[in-house]
Amino acid sequence: MGESIYGLKRSHKCTELGVENIGETVTVMGWVQKQRDLGSLVFVDLRDISGILQIVFTDKDGEMFERAKTIRSEFVLAVVGTVSARAPEAVNKKMATGAIEITAKELRILSTAETPPIYIEENLDANEMTRLKYRYLDLRRPDMQRNFILRHRVAKVARDYYDENGFLEVETPILIKSTPEGARDYLVPSRVHQGKFFALPQSPQLYKQLLMVSGFDRYFQIAKCFRDEDLRADRQPEFTQIDIEMSFVNVDDVITCNEGFIKRAFKEALGVELETPFIRMPYAEAMERFGSDKPDIRFGMELVNMSDLVANCGFKVFTDAIASGGSVRAINAKGCSKFSRKEIDALVEVVKTYKAKGMAWVSISADNEIKSSFAKFMTEEEMKALLERADAQPGDLICFVADKNDIVFDALGQLRLEVARRLNILNPDEFKFLWVTEFPLFEYDEEEKRYVAKHHPFTCPMDEDLELLDTDPGKVRAKAYDIVLNGVELGGGSIRIHIQDLQAKMLEMLGFTEEDANRKFGFLLNAFKYGTPPHGGMAFGLDRMIMLMAKTDSIRDVIAFPKVQNSSSPMDNAPDIVDEGQLEELHIRITKD
Amino acid sequence: MGESIYGLKRSHKCTELGVENIGETVTVMGWVQKQRDLGSLVFVDLRDISGILQIVFTDKDGEMFERAKTIRSEFVLAVVGTVSARAPEAVNKKMATGAIEITAKELRILSTAETPPIYIEENLDANEMTRLKYRYLDLRRPDMQRNFILRHRVAKVARDYYDENGFLEVETPILIKSTPEGARDYLVPSRVHQGKFFALPQSPQLYKQLLMVSGFDRYFQIAKCFRDEDLRADRQPEFTQIDIEMSFVNVDDVITCNEGFIKRAFKEALGVELETPFIRMPYAEAMERFGSDKPDIRFGMELVNMSDLVANCGFKVFTDAIASGGSVRAINAKGCSKFSRKEIDALVEVVKTYKAKGMAWVSISADNEIKSSFAKFMTEEEMKALLERADAQPGDLICFVADKNDIVFDALGQLRLEVARRLNILNPDEFKFLWVTEFPLFEYDEEEKRYVAKHHPFTCPMDEDLELLDTDPGKVRAKAYDIVLNGVELGGGSIRIHIQDLQAKMLEMLGFTEEDANRKFGFLLNAFKYGTPPHGGMAFGLDRMIMLMAKTDSIRDVIAFPKVQNSSSPMDNAPDIVDEGQLEELHIRITKD
Repeated sequence: MGESIYGLKRSHKCTELGVENIGETVTVMGWVQKQRDLGSLVFVDLRDISGILQIVFTDKDGEMFERAKTIRSEFVLAVVGTVSARAPEAVNKKMATGAIEITAKELRILSTAETPPIYIEENLDANEMTRLKYRYLDLRRPDMQRNFILRHRVAKVARDYYDENGFLEVETPILIKSTPEGARDYLVPSRVHQGKFFALPQSPQLYKQLLMVSGFDRYFQIAKCFRDEDLRADRQPEFTQIDIEMSFVNVDDVITCNEGFIKRAFKEALGVELETPFIRMPYAEAMERFGSDKPDIRFGMELVNMSDLVANCGFKVFTDAIASGGSVRAINAKGCSKFSRKEIDALVEVVKTYKAKGMAWVSISADNEIKSSFAKFMTEEEMKALLERADAQPGDLICFVADKNDIVFDALGQLRLEVARRLNILNPDEFKFLWVTEFPLFEYDEEEKRYVAKHHPFTCPMDEDLELLDTDPGKVRAKAYDIVLNGVELGGGSIRIHIQDLQAKMLEMLGFTEEDANRKFGFLLNAFKYGTPPHGGMAFGLDRMIMLMAKTDSIRDVIAFPKVQNSSSPMDNAPDIVDEGQLEELHIRITKD
Repeated sequence: MGESIYGLKRSHKCTELGVENIGETVTVMGWVQKQRDLGSLVFVDLRDISGILQIVFTDKDGEMFERAKTIRSEFVLAVVGTVSARAPEAVNKKMATGAIEITAKELRILSTAETPPIYIEENLDANEMTRLKYRYLDLRRPDMQRNFILRHRVAKVARDYYDENGFLEVETPILIKSTPEGARDYLVPSRVHQGKFFALPQSPQLYKQLLMVSGFDRYFQIAKCFRDEDLRADRQPEFTQIDIEMSFVNVDDVITCNEGFIKRAFKEALGVELETPFIRMPYAEAMERFGSDKPDIRFGMELVNMSDLVANCGFKVFTDAIASGGSVRAINAKGCSKFSRKEIDALVEVVKTYKAKGMAWVSISADNEIKSSFAKFMTEEEMKALLERADAQPGDLICFVADKNDIVFDALGQLRLEVARRLNILNPDEFKFLWVTEFPLFEYDEEEKRYVAKHHPFTCPMDEDLELLDTDPGKVRAKAYDIVLNGVELGGGSIRIHIQDLQAKMLEMLGFTEEDANRKFGFLLNAFKYGTPPHGGMAFGLDRMIMLMAKTDSIRDVIAFPKVQNSSSPMDNAPDIVDEGQLEELHIRITKD
């Protein structure tokens, strides 16, 4: 079933060889991509992590030739041989090693292989459950291996960059206290302390702030985080973030430092030169222009506010929305006047998904014919003003939503993306970064009828807005920022509150009783009593970042052993039942319900 | 209670300033190490992660001077000031910045501070529970910060070194399947899969082997591992290992590659030049010479086998031990003839702790007087032969143990260390590495009356010993190796079995039924069917390694937020009770027993 490599030593990886090695005796090892038996010749394509190399056996090789004939796909071989030039007509320009081949002198079959249940090839179109069950085979595919080489490279750049900038990698604990805030914690029963539990961290937030209180100045970690939530396409129960925190900094320091990392990662890992500084856009502007706090700025079609033009028009849908404090806004779907009625109806469905009651539209055909869903309510002049403000040209389709601002922004922001997808103008090779800044400090929770922290309770309000805390909390902006790439939030952070009075006030405004606050993060509040530096930081979602860099649609393609939708792992069958004795030791019992 | 740094920007860390900056206006930020109020002058020692810098306020400073008088230890300040030379008599040569001081122009008290419960100073002799409860203050102490700077540096060297040598950092999962083998698993109840559990990994062993099956060639990770065991001084529930695995390698490749990392880590992080290659010593030799598989080779006093000299002597203790297959061995405790009877009795207690029935001894005083616990049973010639073989000189004490070999090795190996400690000859600045190789593949479990794997069931036997598997399993040596520093095992690993037949045979010999093996690591055995490269690897215990490099006695001094003996964390009070609702969602209930 297999031989030892005893006595043999690999001299090269497959694609480390080229015409410059012709005549050398080399030892290569790898998997059989394919074997072709031509009777008097056997060709083997040998694959290792570097790529593929051709080996030749001839009928002069006697016993070795007979063994070469038994070779099948995915056998593992060690081959000693001579590097030879291929005949000119046999040169394969598509292969890195296409000008050479190895004439075998010694063959050792290190491992045989059964026929694998999936093909080991690029862009495999196989059932994902099968791929995940046989993950060790799926990971042999060159496109998958490239994803992990990329991931390695980005992580390495992070470690280099932050090290060079004075950050210390500090490991924070995985077995921590449960603070039922935000998402659901994974719990770990304690054997020693009956009835007590550890939690797995949702992020190292409190610990990294403590490190700043400790004077570590700059902290960095590529940290595993855990959330026991129902999975969406781009979520995993355990995920990885590049986590940083800095002392004695303001928003500008954090942003400047961290965009330096992004610039370097794209350069070193992808060869892409990004222009810095990235655009910085206040939250309010991002909403006004793109209807989103994570705008995709690879294309225009920005939102246009039409409220003043229609405040007194004859269309009740518009005037009602404005009268009740909302607005009427539109996007110009460039070149979409050719959309059929059915296609336009589909756009209406999009805005409805995002809670808009409907979508009004005007189209101007290529030969300047104007159609509209609401022309009858408008004067010719009003309509002209709308088209002018929308910069409408022949061929355009202008889409209007009238509602509360939240809904207008959300619906048009999503509509804008949908139109772009339909027009197929989203270029995955274009990387458009921006920072969204000055987020609101609070969000109003309609259900609970109170303010909740938009980021988390330790986020610092902007100095300019401090006095609004008492008078108009909803207007207070935070020293918080997100980094956005092509419409995807890659990370975010904030300057934290380092002033005890202010922290106490925040917690009070968020409805924490003192007891509650102390039970949940008393150790942090306590730490703040002994001299706290101004500090702030951020975290990048590494999985998502690699996903975008690798241009794959699934986060599972950039995690070596991912979980599926129901939080289980098809390969090792985790989670699984355990021995009764294990549970007894942990003082727990499974309930039936 | 504190001001914002809004508008200010730190220009230097404290010790980045020197005489070359005299006359410059700088902005520094940090904690107050101490404040001295001399009436018309106030001196502040400002501390940041780099060290300490003196600030001066004078009574000409008006309002700022009044505020400077209110400054207390651990306040956090931002100071804008001018770098000035100290008066010659005020120069402090012990301080990096002892020739300068900052004449303050602007003072901002960023944070006040209560009097901390522990002193922020080097080599603090405080109660450890207090230190751990206020860990964020304990971590302000410069000796602790140096430990973590060292840890960061070593981790960074590891990442650089393995990257340069073709290793890919791949993250393996933390939520895995429980395989009740080895130590006790930490379990994580699944919310989605009622009655099922994840386990936290004791090591990424199976996953890193799968990555080799996947063709990743070389894998590297600084990995968190978890063991739910009762803690010893140098153990933690969660610990960190530098984890590596390589394909197409033999023992020599793994050893050579990894000692290259150690050499570089000591050079870059400590400035210590280690000589490589390290000594490699087969397990059998380590036992013979040092009575230990992790010998401290900073000193001699090697074990000497006396069995042939006493096989027929008149001392029944000796002859009985030999007759029943054991041996009589000794160490020469150089210069210990001066030990009092009480001190010698204490040595006897040491060997008894390690199950020896007693210790025989001979001392030769400085003036050549021989005393012995067993002289009366020996001829003069026999005694002379013993002393000769022990290379006994005036002043020496020769200690004998006669028993089964296991006990003799263990007792004398420990006695050797105890004598060295008493003689105070163990120099912590000397780093003596060696590889212990050719470990036995199996250990005989006296309780279970069967062989168990010494390393783990995937360890490959030595090619030379394959035939012994059937005839004399106890004699089979493994392709396993440990790296030992000053008597401490820093890590270890093995070449794994990559041949299915051999793996099946191993599991059978270890008493696994096929069903059992499949349930526990079926996914690995399955993976081996599809072409497995020869592979091997190792892991370094990072915490222990840093502990030795930092020359501290406690592993807790090199872990930012460690647990104490009972697996709890005094700072955040984890583990803790959780809400009933959390348990309900997880389908578990706490049992009372």
